[in-house]
Amino acid sequence: MLYDRLAQDLYTEICHIPLIDPHSHIDPRRPAARSLDEILGYHYYTELAHSVGMDQGPLAPGVDARERVRSILYHMAQFDNTVQHQWFLEICRAFFNFQGHRVTLADCAALFDTAEKLMARPDWEEHVLHQSNLEKVFLTNDFDDTLEGFDTSRYVPCLRTDDLVFHLDKPDVQSRLATATRIEPRDLPSLRRAVGTLFEHFTRHGAKACAISLPPDFSPYSVNDQEFATALAALLRKDSQNKALCSVGVFWILAEYCRSFKLPFDLMIGVNRRVYERGVHQGQDLFDQRTSLLQYAKLFNAFPEVPFCISVLSSGQNQELVSHGWIFPNVITSGHWWYSNVPPYIEQDLRARLAAVPKAKQIGYYSDMYKLEFGLPKYNMYRRILAQVLANDFVRPRLYTEAQAVELARLLLRDNVRRIFNV
Amino acid sequence: MLYDRLAQDLYTEICHIPLIDPHSHIDPRRPAARSLDEILGYHYYTELAHSVGMDQGPLAPGVDARERVRSILYHMAQFDNTVQHQWFLEICRAFFNFQGHRVTLADCAALFDTAEKLMARPDWEEHVLHQSNLEKVFLTNDFDDTLEGFDTSRYVPCLRTDDLVFHLDKPDVQSRLATATRIEPRDLPSLRRAVGTLFEHFTRHGAKACAISLPPDFSPYSVNDQEFATALAALLRKDSQNKALCSVGVFWILAEYCRSFKLPFDLMIGVNRRVYERGVHQGQDLFDQRTSLLQYAKLFNAFPEVPFCISVLSSGQNQELVSHGWIFPNVITSGHWWYSNVPPYIEQDLRARLAAVPKAKQIGYYSDMYKLEFGLPKYNMYRRILAQVLANDFVRPRLYTEAQAVELARLLLRDNVRRIFNV
Amino acid sequence: MLYDRLAQDLYTEICHIPLIDPHSHIDPRRPAARSLDEILGYHYYTELAHSVGMDQGPLAPGVDARERVRSILYHMAQFDNTVQHQWFLEICRAFFNFQGHRVTLADCAALFDTAEKLMARPDWEEHVLHQSNLEKVFLTNDFDDTLEGFDTSRYVPCLRTDDLVFHLDKPDVQSRLATATRIEPRDLPSLRRAVGTLFEHFTRHGAKACAISLPPDFSPYSVNDQEFATALAALLRKDSQNKALCSVGVFWILAEYCRSFKLPFDLMIGVNRRVYERGVHQGQDLFDQRTSLLQYAKLFNAFPEVPFCISVLSSGQNQELVSHGWIFPNVITSGHWWYSNVPPYIEQDLRARLAAVPKAKQIGYYSDMYKLEFGLPKYNMYRRILAQVLANDFVRPRLYTEAQAVELARLLLRDNVRRIFNV
Repeated sequence: MLYDRLAQDLYTEICHIPLIDPHSHIDPRRPAARSLDEILGYHYYTELAHSVGMDQGPLAPGVDARERVRSILYHMAQFDNTVQHQWFLEICRAFFNFQGHRVTLADCAALFDTAEKLMARPDWEEHVLHQSNLEKVFLTNDFDDTLEGFDTSRYVPCLRTDDLVFHLDKPDVQSRLATATRIEPRDLPSLRRAVGTLFEHFTRHGAKACAISLPPDFSPYSVNDQEFATALAALLRKDSQNKALCSVGVFWILAEYCRSFKLPFDLMIGVNRRVYERGVHQGQDLFDQRTSLLQYAKLFNAFPEVPFCISVLSSGQNQELVSHGWIFPNVITSGHWWYSNVPPYIEQDLRARLAAVPKAKQIGYYSDMYKLEFGLPKYNMYRRILAQVLANDFVRPRLYTEAQAVELARLLLRDNVRRIFNV
Repeated sequence: MLYDRLAQDLYTEICHIPLIDPHSHIDPRRPAARSLDEILGYHYYTELAHSVGMDQGPLAPGVDARERVRSILYHMAQFDNTVQHQWFLEICRAFFNFQGHRVTLADCAALFDTAEKLMARPDWEEHVLHQSNLEKVFLTNDFDDTLEGFDTSRYVPCLRTDDLVFHLDKPDVQSRLATATRIEPRDLPSLRRAVGTLFEHFTRHGAKACAISLPPDFSPYSVNDQEFATALAALLRKDSQNKALCSVGVFWILAEYCRSFKLPFDLMIGVNRRVYERGVHQGQDLFDQRTSLLQYAKLFNAFPEVPFCISVLSSGQNQELVSHGWIFPNVITSGHWWYSNVPPYIEQDLRARLAAVPKAKQIGYYSDMYKLEFGLPKYNMYRRILAQVLANDFVRPRLYTEAQAVELARLLLRDNVRRIFNV
Repeated sequence: MLYDRLAQDLYTEICHIPLIDPHSHIDPRRPAARSLDEILGYHYYTELAHSVGMDQGPLAPGVDARERVRSILYHMAQFDNTVQHQWFLEICRAFFNFQGHRVTLADCAALFDTAEKLMARPDWEEHVLHQSNLEKVFLTNDFDDTLEGFDTSRYVPCLRTDDLVFHLDKPDVQSRLATATRIEPRDLPSLRRAVGTLFEHFTRHGAKACAISLPPDFSPYSVNDQEFATALAALLRKDSQNKALCSVGVFWILAEYCRSFKLPFDLMIGVNRRVYERGVHQGQDLFDQRTSLLQYAKLFNAFPEVPFCISVLSSGQNQELVSHGWIFPNVITSGHWWYSNVPPYIEQDLRARLAAVPKAKQIGYYSDMYKLEFGLPKYNMYRRILAQVLANDFVRPRLYTEAQAVELARLLLRDNVRRIFNV
């Protein structure tokens, strides 16, 4: 889909770089989709269909998968301009032998059947990984994941900590923590020990990162131990008055363990949860542009040994990210997240990063995918933009040769991930 | 002025789409200008001339129209780089037989005379509409407009509500409301009835929208009735202490009536009034980038049946708009407003919307004009940018055929307006 | 490095315009660098080297200059993608007869020697100015600078006032002020007289501007004299409780003197100092995007006679700057500062300014340099972007002829500086 010859040539070369995807939501025990329904069940399609008028009826558990697919495809005609539609089309063409340029209701039955047949093949997972040139994929594991039953060298564990930081007031989270660690979190010392046990468990199973998503108003600092202990005691007694302070306190503990266990900390900054209350599953979250990386200055100063891989949700904040990545040795720019994972924003955010952040400190892209099939179209989108930016900003102005441009791409797509996460 | 052949071809096709302009300040009883003075009386010219040093003397009522025009043209030499200068030049060339590329003082007399002669023709209004391919134009009517004396199928009424929400403390507004509705707003029930009467009057006369402009710090929610009643009683007693709460309360009433009368609600978000105190008329307002659509989450959740057509004032906030239009079924992206109605910002805002907002939920453009003559150059500006974006982002990458790209333009410029506003 | 023929032609013409650089940190008594060490001592290189892992050892005073240069060059391989690397390469090629496209450790010794030999020539300063087509360079003088011992028609003094506004609580600043003015700042009247004495001294020595950098939360207003006097008395007694009020008060006094001495006031808005506490010298400052020019509305309204030349730190705020420059007669857009002095941001900020701010009110660029050698690569970067924008946005759409485009460039690079600063 590139029409610039130089960019096309660069793209072809870039596609040969084996990918290490440093952030996904893949279920390693069930990494690939098993039907078109699982492809179109990705929240991007359900939320866009809902946005143009589909009610949530077709998404109910009892509904026939074909009916759900038909309903989403029917509504897709109203969002066939979006990049998410392109991803779907590219999946159909790359994996399901689809030849057209639009998937319409008329294609539904045949496409459903073809997909089902192909996806049932025993080598489907391998096939998708191979077609996508994906070598390793990072996961997002609940803190109480056993991390057993899958190949952790292919599917790299990663400790997701949102529950610990933002939902420790929930009895369910407390009991999951107790079960996973055999330590009852009764007070600050036992909580610290429990979290430490999680880090031990995860690193022993090959985890390469700790990760969290954060709301726009989060502003971490080192909480006084006594204050924290008091607030935590109240929280464990179901008194949520000082919940925010506990969140900051637990977050700071995580950073301390990242330091001692030498794990990079992925911070995905800026999401407000459940803004659209009646939205579809995973289609309720938005953001507030009034946020600043200045809120993280204390953190970045306190943990010079921890690499913080930062994703931001708005293109406006990307300039803050560029500047922090330029100044702070421990700030790494990471991928193009969610509402900024759209070509016009990727393009301008990427151009700024390439012009001002040391190339060694940039993680180019991650898929954020739930099913393996999305790696190909998402990375292709990024690789096309990268190829065009390298052509226009580096090769044509004779700053880089084509070979040097491809080397830069290799850093962004592979070598930096390997070095920063130590894989 | 397009130099890309494909974009030029698309532009030519797009120009054939009859326009429905969903927001203007046209006086339907006097829609076209009657002199060059009325053209250059547009605040864009008076404020830019003032910005480069013209004092307000030439704008005084007693000054000869030719003198005022000369003064503005004299200063225009210092802002002939702006897009507003392009609009003026395009008007002169399209409507006044002007052949040059710069309007100088030497052209002033001849241009003034030609304009006066042409504009005096009885078919001038028809001529301008026809040349501009404008089929319908939405108005911005004061709440006490009789809506009589003009063709409401051509000039579509729209209830402008700034006065009710932000100036209800003024005796003048209260008495206008009483006169228009024959209901004295003495308390909350009578105010509700009065506003309901306005909606009846407007919809009976073919109104298709309710509209308001809002400051950056506005954050609506459902005010408790008792609190609101108390605050309102105070306000009507000239005690403005709880004016802000009354604004929110009245705004919420408007949303309720939009729901019951099935009217879309145009929200033009972000303007601070009278920032430059000594500015020319309508040249005093600016904005504050520190604002978020999150402030409207309660509203969007509470009124799922009301289409909210949202304009934002800054390109930074456009990404919030894109994301909200993508997630909330009742959020529509609308036009390119005021300080964002400048080609570089239109281009990047449009690209993001086309990549991420369902095409059915985008209102491409509105003129915001006070005189019909501005429809042509403003829509041409937008159509050129649209044609170029469609060429680069859709046709060249083979996502859309040229015909499909023109169909997308038709949605943005006409069909979505018809469907969303039910015209 | 331009590959577009039209842009290349425009660039060539633009390079003939003799530059007046309206903001730098040149030491007029030692304007050029004397070694490669002084070139690479620019904070851009030390902070980027530190960002990719160089500790601060090589920056210690006792370290051999060649060793320091080797260390920075060694780390430069990890940021050879940045625009700062381009500046360095362009200096080496333009001034040190370097022929390559990468400076590696292998080049270090030869380059160091060549630079040292060339820079020792008595005409080096003249040579650099001539090669760079720099006619005049504005300085940033401490308030107690004698302003003697250099040619003030070439190196134009400028009163830097950060210390007075933000550090008046420091005994050192108070005593420097007393020494420079022979007025002990004991109270508000004596402080006013002292500051007035500085303005007399500076204007008598050819100063053409007053300048200050401001944090993102600064919001000036006219402080009540009595309140200010009380707060100031406390501050001078080392009670810093009302320091912020004193800052605003002193700032307002500066604006008053700018008015009476007819000096433009350069406001460089948005920097947070010492955010990265362990950063290298001058590599510790960042910004917070949550700031607005609305904070300056009172100032702009109160001083219509003072030209405020505004620099902003983030591209997001550039749209506020564009809009304020369009509305306020006394707001001038000025240059591309620090974290926005990166090609992708310059390009979009420049395009918006050219489309919406009167051309007479734009100061295109300043170098911000500490050593003369940086004028050439920094201005070249800007001129290339300017040439490309003029080609695409003005000449190709036939809004301007090539000659008119070059005239616009002359305004931005020279004539506006002359008129606004009266040089």
